[in-house]
Amino acid sequence: MGSVQSFRQLCDRQKNTNVHLSLPAVCIVWQTAMIILFGVFIRYNEESDPHWVETKRKKNISSDIENDFYFRYPSFQDVHVMIFVGFGFLMTFLKRYSFGAVGFNFLIAAFGLQWALLMQGWFHSLDYTDGKIKIGVENLINADFCVAGCLIAYGAVLGKVSPVQLLVLTLFGITLFAVEEYIILNLIHARDAGGSMVIHMFGAYYGLAISWMLYRPNLDQSSRLQGSVYHSDVFAMIGTLFLWMFWPSFNSAITDHGDGQHRAAINTYLALSSTVLTTVAVSSLFQKHGKLDMVHIQNSTLAGGVAVGTAAEFMLMPYGSLIVGFCCGIISTLGYIYLTPFMEKHLKIQDTCGIHNLHALPGFIGGIVGAITAAAASESVYGTEGLVNTFDFEGEFKDMKPTRQGGHQAAGMCVAICFGIGGGILVGCILRLPIWGDPADDNCFDDEAYWEVPEDEESIPPILQYNNHMRNKDVTESNFTVEQN
Amino acid sequence: MGSVQSFRQLCDRQKNTNVHLSLPAVCIVWQTAMIILFGVFIRYNEESDPHWVETKRKKNISSDIENDFYFRYPSFQDVHVMIFVGFGFLMTFLKRYSFGAVGFNFLIAAFGLQWALLMQGWFHSLDYTDGKIKIGVENLINADFCVAGCLIAYGAVLGKVSPVQLLVLTLFGITLFAVEEYIILNLIHARDAGGSMVIHMFGAYYGLAISWMLYRPNLDQSSRLQGSVYHSDVFAMIGTLFLWMFWPSFNSAITDHGDGQHRAAINTYLALSSTVLTTVAVSSLFQKHGKLDMVHIQNSTLAGGVAVGTAAEFMLMPYGSLIVGFCCGIISTLGYIYLTPFMEKHLKIQDTCGIHNLHALPGFIGGIVGAITAAAASESVYGTEGLVNTFDFEGEFKDMKPTRQGGHQAAGMCVAICFGIGGGILVGCILRLPIWGDPADDNCFDDEAYWEVPEDEESIPPILQYNNHMRNKDVTESNFTVEQN
Amino acid sequence: MGSVQSFRQLCDRQKNTNVHLSLPAVCIVWQTAMIILFGVFIRYNEESDPHWVETKRKKNISSDIENDFYFRYPSFQDVHVMIFVGFGFLMTFLKRYSFGAVGFNFLIAAFGLQWALLMQGWFHSLDYTDGKIKIGVENLINADFCVAGCLIAYGAVLGKVSPVQLLVLTLFGITLFAVEEYIILNLIHARDAGGSMVIHMFGAYYGLAISWMLYRPNLDQSSRLQGSVYHSDVFAMIGTLFLWMFWPSFNSAITDHGDGQHRAAINTYLALSSTVLTTVAVSSLFQKHGKLDMVHIQNSTLAGGVAVGTAAEFMLMPYGSLIVGFCCGIISTLGYIYLTPFMEKHLKIQDTCGIHNLHALPGFIGGIVGAITAAAASESVYGTEGLVNTFDFEGEFKDMKPTRQGGHQAAGMCVAICFGIGGGILVGCILRLPIWGDPADDNCFDDEAYWEVPEDEESIPPILQYNNHMRNKDVTESNFTVEQN
Repeated sequence: MGSVQSFRQLCDRQKNTNVHLSLPAVCIVWQTAMIILFGVFIRYNEESDPHWVETKRKKNISSDIENDFYFRYPSFQDVHVMIFVGFGFLMTFLKRYSFGAVGFNFLIAAFGLQWALLMQGWFHSLDYTDGKIKIGVENLINADFCVAGCLIAYGAVLGKVSPVQLLVLTLFGITLFAVEEYIILNLIHARDAGGSMVIHMFGAYYGLAISWMLYRPNLDQSSRLQGSVYHSDVFAMIGTLFLWMFWPSFNSAITDHGDGQHRAAINTYLALSSTVLTTVAVSSLFQKHGKLDMVHIQNSTLAGGVAVGTAAEFMLMPYGSLIVGFCCGIISTLGYIYLTPFMEKHLKIQDTCGIHNLHALPGFIGGIVGAITAAAASESVYGTEGLVNTFDFEGEFKDMKPTRQGGHQAAGMCVAICFGIGGGILVGCILRLPIWGDPADDNCFDDEAYWEVPEDEESIPPILQYNNHMRNKDVTESNFTVEQN
Repeated sequence: MGSVQSFRQLCDRQKNTNVHLSLPAVCIVWQTAMIILFGVFIRYNEESDPHWVETKRKKNISSDIENDFYFRYPSFQDVHVMIFVGFGFLMTFLKRYSFGAVGFNFLIAAFGLQWALLMQGWFHSLDYTDGKIKIGVENLINADFCVAGCLIAYGAVLGKVSPVQLLVLTLFGITLFAVEEYIILNLIHARDAGGSMVIHMFGAYYGLAISWMLYRPNLDQSSRLQGSVYHSDVFAMIGTLFLWMFWPSFNSAITDHGDGQHRAAINTYLALSSTVLTTVAVSSLFQKHGKLDMVHIQNSTLAGGVAVGTAAEFMLMPYGSLIVGFCCGIISTLGYIYLTPFMEKHLKIQDTCGIHNLHALPGFIGGIVGAITAAAASESVYGTEGLVNTFDFEGEFKDMKPTRQGGHQAAGMCVAICFGIGGGILVGCILRLPIWGDPADDNCFDDEAYWEVPEDEESIPPILQYNNHMRNKDVTESNFTVEQN
Repeated sequence: MGSVQSFRQLCDRQKNTNVHLSLPAVCIVWQTAMIILFGVFIRYNEESDPHWVETKRKKNISSDIENDFYFRYPSFQDVHVMIFVGFGFLMTFLKRYSFGAVGFNFLIAAFGLQWALLMQGWFHSLDYTDGKIKIGVENLINADFCVAGCLIAYGAVLGKVSPVQLLVLTLFGITLFAVEEYIILNLIHARDAGGSMVIHMFGAYYGLAISWMLYRPNLDQSSRLQGSVYHSDVFAMIGTLFLWMFWPSFNSAITDHGDGQHRAAINTYLALSSTVLTTVAVSSLFQKHGKLDMVHIQNSTLAGGVAVGTAAEFMLMPYGSLIVGFCCGIISTLGYIYLTPFMEKHLKIQDTCGIHNLHALPGFIGGIVGAITAAAASESVYGTEGLVNTFDFEGEFKDMKPTRQGGHQAAGMCVAICFGIGGGILVGCILRLPIWGDPADDNCFDDEAYWEVPEDEESIPPILQYNNHMRNKDVTESNFTVEQN
């Protein structure tokens, strides 16, 4: 017990946000490591290699348009926008943390996707003949997906950690993700096209566990910066909308060619539409005078996309998608109203962006919906070949039955939660070490800590600002009477 | 006469913007209705159904890439961006109505597209063998198109109506749209790839008629909020640019595979380029000192895309597209300078976003251009097969001649105008009922009415703001001498 | 000597920013000229012409999906976003020049792409049978590329020139670009998929030479407007991110179908990721307290995309891309820290956006990397056919060897630099004429010069603003004690 206490004391000593050496050192060392590992391991796959012209002939492929690039590149670019603009701008809602929101999101995504290409490559794209990872557009999409898990986790600790901590969070997050994903998709053989379990549940619980480990009892010292201002809420809507619009691409990006991608896009489109209406309804119902709250519109409207992730490629049916979206809009908004304050007060989990309501809860619903939809699958609905294709009942799983598949889906959820919470506690321990340059309690949510912030006229007291204004304009006479008193 | 007056008095009684019950009730009830109707009617079509693998074999389709998804999905996503980011941000130009602009746009689009899938489905995608509507990516695009009509109408009443009124406007708007579209495209057999008539003329006249019915003689009471501020104009440019850039996708999204989509994209790209130059020219010419007006740049630059909508898939020729854009830039900008004030003063039509200049006038030009281009079509220009494909001279219209097609195009315009004005008057009557929670005249264009607006430092009187600032910072000594007087 | 001096005096006389006649005149005349030239020269190519159905049959093309439209349209739209939103918003970082940044970017891009279709068409798409230029989607992409060169140049003179000057800059820029491109790609037979040399080096040296010619010794008179404010930096990040995300599309948009596009996208994706980490590292290392500078994050993170432009379609290998990105992030950021101030002080080159660091230096690196990668190419790596396809060793160049190709690549760089500097000096001379309405030294970086700027509450002295506020609200009693003194 004593050692725990002294560990705590060690961690809570005077904060210093100077990352003058640690941030450059980590960036340069890790990027150098990436170059070396890429040099050893990563090569182009046969569809991005100049021998493609021979591959085509050998495999009797009639046209370049059959290259996987043309099936997946438009979806890839949409996913890319979600990762960098969607997640980045969604977090700009705080009045003075927009640089950190967009900038650190940019940094950790750019690092994370490199590490993800390696980690996922070892598990999924290793060519055993030469020991190399062969990459193509599908790997790029999967790397972006992998990064999404870490960006979700960033949402929980937004404004309370240093960029070095974020890079550590990302390094471990990607590693855990790749292992968890391999277990769920390959060993357990659960299906998870849009990553309700693999991405959203894992990412959310990972972030919440870290936030719990980094609990700040005196965070109200920076309460002046915890809200939004008018324009920061509009910026955040850019993030919301690009996530919302491109979510059909997210959920369909790596599903089967043809009807698989087509159906996943339709289901996601419908689920998201439905969520918007119930979010508005609950937001209005639970506020005084029925006024809408931007926090709900920015976040809960997206819950349907999360929840339909697993089942998007299944025969969820259009009305099924609407029902999933309907429920998620309600649950997610209620989460913002009741659960977030409860968790902060009683569970000591400070969740800046409310990822519990946007990713954990809808991810959980998504996992359940996926399990039920899989268990209910039948040859009459899917067709004999369709069932095999959709659920990939091939190879060692060729005798799998839909009902058993439902059980496997549920098992996948457990793995995602365990990896999220367990990994988060472990990484949270590491991030408590007093070497990472995180901000003090009264210095959170403030870009001043890590950014050169322009001398904004707005931040100067108005009277002084007026004086400056006059001085700049070199005005000698003044109709400004106050000073003449 | 007396009854009209008492109706007016009834409608103009004390306003109350409280939508505490009506908004949630409408959202929940309508979304529930959507779920039931989708359950009864909507199914996947053969390209999004798992039986696709069998369909391919039966129809001798060689590759998954022949699935319509790959022809249309990139365009669909661009159209989706136009609907949610394009229209949404275009309307953020008002200084304190950005939440309403983006947020209500989001709400009515999300509701509208569900209702549009049903309404358009009954007319166009009903499978008579089982009475179900079979949807695929083309239905999603058409639903987005249908929603666009209502979002155009929203532009006319922006800031003056409640979200409940907007939902009513959308419900009726989508219904009218689907009927009007069926008459124009199927019964009259007019072609309208980019919807100059079907979408823009209908939407604009619908909105203008509603705005006329909801005329507010004392709207100048909220004139303090009718302008823009610097940053709100920059936000609006996000909307403008995403509309402008993706308009080639809008006009080519549902045209014929191959040369049809290709040509529509080229024509739209050219028309829009030309519009920008003439908009700048006229804006500069008619302002003192030649200064440009952001209102024109935000709106009139888009007129070329509207006007080239009908003829985009025809042999308009590249120079023809430039000419259309040239004229529209001039006419639309002059509309903002002269027509909008005239209409407000003399016709009692208050058109917040100037949709008359951006959609009605260019839509009208587009209809005319379409009729002329169709009438002038010949086998020497299109080729025998090309003519049949482009104008769909098949089935009962297989003896149609281009000259007659020109007449049908003109007839289509009349239907669009009639449905717009007639429907708008009808819906305007309904919206005058005193039950919808619309704002009072001195409360228009203000997000405070329906949104929890953050306590913005800017909106607090500056002296108090400074005091707050000091209090927050817990500063005891002060070099701020005014208060010490 | 005397004549030079009197030329200078002529040019430096009293400035007048009134473009009341010149701007409309130039726009209308040039747009009219475009219409005439398009009428004479431009037609649809066989893939966008209604005879496509016959072409398909004649060329034995099995499906509409083989139309080039489907290979390139998604990339085209991404490039289009980079040109209009990417470049436009990247330049909004100045506190009071966002209208000019986005608006003039819009204007010159819309004009430039029309002129580019003609200029590039004469060189590359002229059908000698009928003397017409036949355009399709690839021409649209190339026109956007061509415009990019001029937008880069705009970055150097941002805030210091009039819109008329920008149109002149664009007219000559596009013309020079098309000639330079023809020499480099066709006569010298250098390869340059992403335009490191053709677009970035040319554009940057063109802009820098113009800026040198337009040197303003007293530019510090408008130093109050040369910085950013908080929100303008966030707006600029929209530009940065859309450039960053869509750069893989830029570099792969016109490469060979199949593996060429696939590989170019992968290489660009990787190079850009790597650049982000080294930019952050150097930015933090060279600032006091390790704080990051938004200027670096907004700009240097993009350098990797520039530098990988030429070699993106070659076998640069994934680790090679990372190395290129690694170096460029460092060099570009150091350029912002040391070179930009040096150039302004000692070379009299005022480079508003630092295009030397973002385009010239990385473009130079890109040219070198391209030359080395080409020279090192071998049949064992590319395959016999792959080598011929990738380097286009066909026709008169069918005996070309990779080593010699490396020399040709280097020669291409020299041409790009010469055209850039030479053209820039020439055009700079023209732009010094005192007829263009450019702003005075104390009036630079200010939207007031060319735009109707809304009466922003923020720009009114706060006490007066408060008074206005009270007056508007019609408040008679006041708890604002200062005035009561």
